[in-house]
Amino acid sequence: MKRAGLDAYIIPHSDEYQNEFIAPYAERLAWLTGFTGSAGSCAVLMDRAAVMSDGRYTLQLKSQVNQELYDLADSTKISAFDWALGQICENGGGKDFVIGYDPRLHTVDELERWEKTLKEKKGAYAGCSIAIRAVSANLVDAVWPDQPPVPTAPVTLFPDEIAGVGASEKIDWLRTVLEEENCSGFYTAAPETLCWLLNIRGNDVDFTPVVLASLLVLRDQVHLFIDPAKIEGSVCKILERAVTMHDPKDMEGALKTAIQGNESDGPIALDGGATSVYGRDLLKGMGANIRPLKDPCIQRRACKTPAEQNAIGQAHIADGRALVRFMIWLERNGGAGDQTEVSIANALENCRRQEDTYIGPSFPTICGFGENGAVIHYRAEDTRCKTIRGDGLLLIDSGGQYRWGTTDITRVFMMGENILPEMRRDYTLVLKGHIALAMAKFPAGTTGAQLDSFARGPLWNAGLDYAHGTGHGVGCYLSVHEEASHISPRGKATLLPGMLLSNEPGYYKEGAYGIRLENLILVEEGGGTYTDTNKKILGFKTVSLAPFERALIDGAILNMDEIEWLNSYHQDIYNTLRDGLSHDEQNWLKDKTRPLD
Amino acid sequence: MKRAGLDAYIIPHSDEYQNEFIAPYAERLAWLTGFTGSAGSCAVLMDRAAVMSDGRYTLQLKSQVNQELYDLADSTKISAFDWALGQICENGGGKDFVIGYDPRLHTVDELERWEKTLKEKKGAYAGCSIAIRAVSANLVDAVWPDQPPVPTAPVTLFPDEIAGVGASEKIDWLRTVLEEENCSGFYTAAPETLCWLLNIRGNDVDFTPVVLASLLVLRDQVHLFIDPAKIEGSVCKILERAVTMHDPKDMEGALKTAIQGNESDGPIALDGGATSVYGRDLLKGMGANIRPLKDPCIQRRACKTPAEQNAIGQAHIADGRALVRFMIWLERNGGAGDQTEVSIANALENCRRQEDTYIGPSFPTICGFGENGAVIHYRAEDTRCKTIRGDGLLLIDSGGQYRWGTTDITRVFMMGENILPEMRRDYTLVLKGHIALAMAKFPAGTTGAQLDSFARGPLWNAGLDYAHGTGHGVGCYLSVHEEASHISPRGKATLLPGMLLSNEPGYYKEGAYGIRLENLILVEEGGGTYTDTNKKILGFKTVSLAPFERALIDGAILNMDEIEWLNSYHQDIYNTLRDGLSHDEQNWLKDKTRPLD
Repeated sequence: MKRAGLDAYIIPHSDEYQNEFIAPYAERLAWLTGFTGSAGSCAVLMDRAAVMSDGRYTLQLKSQVNQELYDLADSTKISAFDWALGQICENGGGKDFVIGYDPRLHTVDELERWEKTLKEKKGAYAGCSIAIRAVSANLVDAVWPDQPPVPTAPVTLFPDEIAGVGASEKIDWLRTVLEEENCSGFYTAAPETLCWLLNIRGNDVDFTPVVLASLLVLRDQVHLFIDPAKIEGSVCKILERAVTMHDPKDMEGALKTAIQGNESDGPIALDGGATSVYGRDLLKGMGANIRPLKDPCIQRRACKTPAEQNAIGQAHIADGRALVRFMIWLERNGGAGDQTEVSIANALENCRRQEDTYIGPSFPTICGFGENGAVIHYRAEDTRCKTIRGDGLLLIDSGGQYRWGTTDITRVFMMGENILPEMRRDYTLVLKGHIALAMAKFPAGTTGAQLDSFARGPLWNAGLDYAHGTGHGVGCYLSVHEEASHISPRGKATLLPGMLLSNEPGYYKEGAYGIRLENLILVEEGGGTYTDTNKKILGFKTVSLAPFERALIDGAILNMDEIEWLNSYHQDIYNTLRDGLSHDEQNWLKDKTRPLD
Repeated sequence: MKRAGLDAYIIPHSDEYQNEFIAPYAERLAWLTGFTGSAGSCAVLMDRAAVMSDGRYTLQLKSQVNQELYDLADSTKISAFDWALGQICENGGGKDFVIGYDPRLHTVDELERWEKTLKEKKGAYAGCSIAIRAVSANLVDAVWPDQPPVPTAPVTLFPDEIAGVGASEKIDWLRTVLEEENCSGFYTAAPETLCWLLNIRGNDVDFTPVVLASLLVLRDQVHLFIDPAKIEGSVCKILERAVTMHDPKDMEGALKTAIQGNESDGPIALDGGATSVYGRDLLKGMGANIRPLKDPCIQRRACKTPAEQNAIGQAHIADGRALVRFMIWLERNGGAGDQTEVSIANALENCRRQEDTYIGPSFPTICGFGENGAVIHYRAEDTRCKTIRGDGLLLIDSGGQYRWGTTDITRVFMMGENILPEMRRDYTLVLKGHIALAMAKFPAGTTGAQLDSFARGPLWNAGLDYAHGTGHGVGCYLSVHEEASHISPRGKATLLPGMLLSNEPGYYKEGAYGIRLENLILVEEGGGTYTDTNKKILGFKTVSLAPFERALIDGAILNMDEIEWLNSYHQDIYNTLRDGLSHDEQNWLKDKTRPLD
């Protein structure tokens, strides 16, 4: 920091691509501070430092971070940048301060927020001037001796027949959008956008099959900056039909040639919420005119093509078989007294691995017994996890990446014989909310906020609620958390046909038990239009296939429509999964999916 | 126009106070063009003119306006100002144009929209410059020989014990708000704000018991500009405790003295959406500094005090008795073949007049038989209305102003013996939606958009919808349409305890029948808080008291919770109204409110 002329340095959790899950080489925050949470940041000054994360990680921060070295803070209340600023103001005076950051790790929007803060608060720093400085060589990398290498997993093709639309066609569509926006190009390093647009996948990070690379789409050329080690011969041939590939080492020169040879001098669009300061400055340095534009691929990607919907269905059939095997295993072995939350999660992983098309988990499994089920973002670990003993509810939230779809499902199991009547009541209320959303019909133009109440209604009426959204978008053999649409009180976006979302109401009784019932649902046209408004009738198709826990359902709280939905859903599961199951498994499933008594 | 140097002149429907219902003297649009709709405007050029209104009035425009003199247009597509601008651009060139308006009839926000349009489109007027000019003497008034006089109905006091809060206390509260906003005063001519703040009412316009006047609240003085003819001795004495009164004729001088004598030189706040350009310019002319501020009284007024809630309850008991008498009358006389939509509305008015506390209707009654019921804003008139003959549904949407509450209720009656099965089904689906909203519990912070879906859910699921909001705010012996909160897909505002709203889902089968079931509901605390989120549990209390049409309810479509709500609501009606009814009426009501078979 001294050599770089800095008084403060910001270290975010993010990598260069703003991934949800990051590769080991990018775990700079964890290496420096010991904190391994999935969100957080650190500010280092010459004589003090702080680590901050949100409420989910309060306890983890305390246990992982050495508090003699670091102050701890709540990132929802103070950012690392603001903390650094505050420290400087308290202790400074009459001096010039420089706050440094790695321009590859922070987005354009983030830098703009910092600059705005600095501008707004200027009055408060009488006597000291503060500057923000991009430092291109990362300071953590410089002192991290055994930093793992940047991944170079091979790129695989996402088959055109699964995508339903070829890469060239997608690029043509993007160009039409750019023309409407009077832009001559689009730059992105967002892994999901890049993979979706080019119909490729990779294995550079855990849980999400993305490729780390960057892309410049111009009116008549497409330039992909990607480590050549990732591209095998056959893949290369096909990719070369749509793009020109460059080694990232030659990025500056290639970019310069591309931009200066661009037939139009219109601006290059980029999404400031996803693009690094480094990326933007590189383009600017080449003389490109930059225009901020919300990444248009996000919404189109969210609306799955019929071919993708079919692939998603196939992935859920495979996942359904795995879940049947797991549920049988759990019924026979879960209560023996020697299983733990971790061993149970491992058993589930083993069941999934028996499926040919299974690639790996789509996120770290949440397996919480008893009061651990009430901790919404609970992660069991070998060194500290509950053994399954006695009566209680077991919540398991897990998902898989399959060739070619992503799953995400939560079920709650009754362990032991005796449960409290309120557990059955609460399970059934959550189920009522789940069914209300699953059954809902609604006009085109309806937002996630309007539908969210259907899932909460039965709980609200009983004085219960849950402190998370009801549904998030899910990718197609991509990220298990996709933006574009949300079913939540703040879900402003309209739900469009083909969107894949989760339906996961819950109820958490602190210190006692947690309930969450999650299926994935596809938005589909229900046929016909509404009278008066002439809007299309939309509805959901549930694609997850696993029975609910009969012992936890209180039929007396369900109305006829709900019972009918449940019986029909269970019947569908049996009919769809039967052929891929053993005789023993078939019998078990038949019993679990018989109509409610 | 020539003498005033104008090329175009805009005539809005609005009066000087932006009232929903306006006094006869302010019906300038109707006098000039013949168009009597409740929304619209007119633009007059030297050689042409146009009248515009929204989709509700398309037919009425055609029948009332002479199309040899006026073009007709859809006001949701083009405003009178934009139409004038378009005409000037098409026909002008190389000339200077002036568009005139009466600054008393247009709000600050409206003028700002015009100025913005002019600025944005400037490029299109090559060769001609366009100016907007306020003309203080209204040009219609100048040529309207028998214009009715400005009303001078006496001001009455709204009792402090009914308001629950005295005028001085409200003014103190307003001053606190102004201090937080760093403002030294607040100017308003919004009738409902003025009446609410001073605990007064009037009779200057139909349907809404407001006083037309204007008000300036400063830190240590309150100035009310009101025609002295409206203030009787006893009212004057009480009002003088809180305000200094001035004749509007002396407004300029009094304002000048007040503002120049104001102890603070902070800005005067005004709501640009409600304040006329005239009002703003007057204040500016006195040297006042102006700050736009959303009228803070709107939200506080929407949250009724316990005393107001009690008064609202009393008004609904009176209205309930009137409705029982009317329903008995309708059952005995409605189907005789000699009644019309107008005579039935009159019979209802006669029933309301039997109540001591009844003042008059809170809006023009909508009474539509058969296909007329499907016209959402239908108004029957003597000269063209249906005679009630044969089988069909009769929709009646009406309300009353009572001392001291406002009512608004819609019921649908079965006329004749034979109805289509789909009428019963649709009535019951609308009822299901009505009940779902009436029963809903929800956490503090929930918006109208989140709750709107409860009322639509049962209809949506059956492929039906309605093209209007589910609920609007209602005043307490004030306007039947109050802003602050809405239950609709676009209802962004949070529902707060004490808010009075309508619950009125519907279904309209064009050319056949209309169904709307409306009660007023009060937001109330349900006791306790939600787990997890710690937010208060809110719910609704239904205050309207009139039985639903049993013959139109298909019990098989209702679930147990819905039947229970309905039986309990009907029981409440009987218990609450019984004492004020004759023996005959009691027996009739007892039968209509017995539990569903």
